[in-house]
Amino acid sequence: MTNTREMLDASPTGVPLGVAEVAAAIDACSNCVQSCTSCADADLVEPDVTEMRACIALCLDCADVCDLVARILSRPAQSDHLVVHRLLKACVRECTLCAEECARHAEHHRHCAICAKACRACEAACKALLDAEAFEQLEKLAGG
Amino acid sequence: MTNTREMLDASPTGVPLGVAEVAAAIDACSNCVQSCTSCADADLVEPDVTEMRACIALCLDCADVCDLVARILSRPAQSDHLVVHRLLKACVRECTLCAEECARHAEHHRHCAICAKACRACEAACKALLDAEAFEQLEKLAGG
Amino acid sequence: MTNTREMLDASPTGVPLGVAEVAAAIDACSNCVQSCTSCADADLVEPDVTEMRACIALCLDCADVCDLVARILSRPAQSDHLVVHRLLKACVRECTLCAEECARHAEHHRHCAICAKACRACEAACKALLDAEAFEQLEKLAGG
Amino acid sequence: MTNTREMLDASPTGVPLGVAEVAAAIDACSNCVQSCTSCADADLVEPDVTEMRACIALCLDCADVCDLVARILSRPAQSDHLVVHRLLKACVRECTLCAEECARHAEHHRHCAICAKACRACEAACKALLDAEAFEQLEKLAGG
Repeated sequence: MTNTREMLDASPTGVPLGVAEVAAAIDACSNCVQSCTSCADADLVEPDVTEMRACIALCLDCADVCDLVARILSRPAQSDHLVVHRLLKACVRECTLCAEECARHAEHHRHCAICAKACRACEAACKALLDAEAFEQLEKLAGG
Repeated sequence: MTNTREMLDASPTGVPLGVAEVAAAIDACSNCVQSCTSCADADLVEPDVTEMRACIALCLDCADVCDLVARILSRPAQSDHLVVHRLLKACVRECTLCAEECARHAEHHRHCAICAKACRACEAACKALLDAEAFEQLEKLAGG
Repeated sequence: MTNTREMLDASPTGVPLGVAEVAAAIDACSNCVQSCTSCADADLVEPDVTEMRACIALCLDCADVCDLVARILSRPAQSDHLVVHRLLKACVRECTLCAEECARHAEHHRHCAICAKACRACEAACKALLDAEAFEQLEKLAGG
Repeated sequence: MTNTREMLDASPTGVPLGVAEVAAAIDACSNCVQSCTSCADADLVEPDVTEMRACIALCLDCADVCDLVARILSRPAQSDHLVVHRLLKACVRECTLCAEECARHAEHHRHCAICAKACRACEAACKALLDAEAFEQLEKLAGG
């Protein structure tokens, strides 16, 4: 059990975009960092490593992107909405790609099956933030 | 809820040092990264920021150390025990210092109270790994 | 002196977007991570820390964003252009904001003057990548 | 060219252990992060990826350890010597292992040759810091 929600509730400035949604996205990102890191580690020692190259590369990038997003969302007091918006969009894209590749190996590698699920959950949690009202307005202004 | 334990169980090589203990340490480190990152962010906007300088500095270092330990423990397949051992000792020290400083502010800042608890939990989880038999032998050989 | 350019030249797949430009962006990002990390550390012990809150917060975010961009650009073999594009746009925004805030303190804090320059250099190096032809086409397709 | 030395010189507290040595270690670590990240990325697309598993795993760990050490050394104002000491010892070990493995592939993979050199340089720079007088006393007190 994490105390992410409690920490955000204790922020003196409050959290824009909805505290429950931000806490959920942070926890989903942290779990995705762990899953992708362990999935790449496991892929590397599988007998079919030659087939796992794309999976490893995507897991490495996905772990790093989610790590950053978890950090930036954990600093709500003075963060910039436009930076957060662009990072969330990068994260959704990365999680989607990684989930798709892991899913291709889910039947023969259990770590890929679990990791695909973690990526999908993270993708959904970040999308939920992007759908928040504040961001919808940004999207209109910025054209993307 | 994380799937850390499931990911480690799916590692083709297995996990040295006890899979339950390693999973617990990873989750404690991830939670500590989040707590310390949010605590430093909150400290910065408190009216008594001048009193919070040590707390902010310790939280920043603690978040980074725990982030690394979570990553290294999430790659058990080919990791080096001596590196893990030294990182765990650095992490225990950092978490202890950060918990002590946060505890000093726990009465007037709720984020410090929660963060102190997260640091203590992480310290305990890393100590539990250091007490594992494999590491006790390392400690004797390496003189610490 | 870094060996970034040599490493990229040794990549079996080659580097999209121009190897000189990518190497320059990686080095500018790494230097910005260092500058922002040290600037926040110095700000925290300045007598006018109360005036430096925004600077510290921006430096922390900027260091983390640039750290990620340096990593992602250092993995050209299988990277996704759309993810890179979104991260570069986030990085340009973050560096711009951080440079502006540091510049406000440049006269009384030498670390802020140096850091502002490092952020401007990183902003320019990332913008140069975004102007590359491959990305211009992406931008048209993605509407931003 | 980095501005690491200038940033450390601008720190209000000064830098313990010798500013030239700390700046050199930070730059060596940053360069090692880049080299190891690109080396792992290149290894993954080599035809003999099956032979490169250990190299990839070591490069990933080495990049993460060096990234942390660069960050911690970039925050000299309030850092804890014992934590720095343990991290430097972990870093020396990791760089040594990674250099040895990369050196085994140096003849057939140019990225491994460059990366081995970067790891050796980082190992030397961290060892130079550990030899500093302040740390020698720590080592005696702590038994390692």
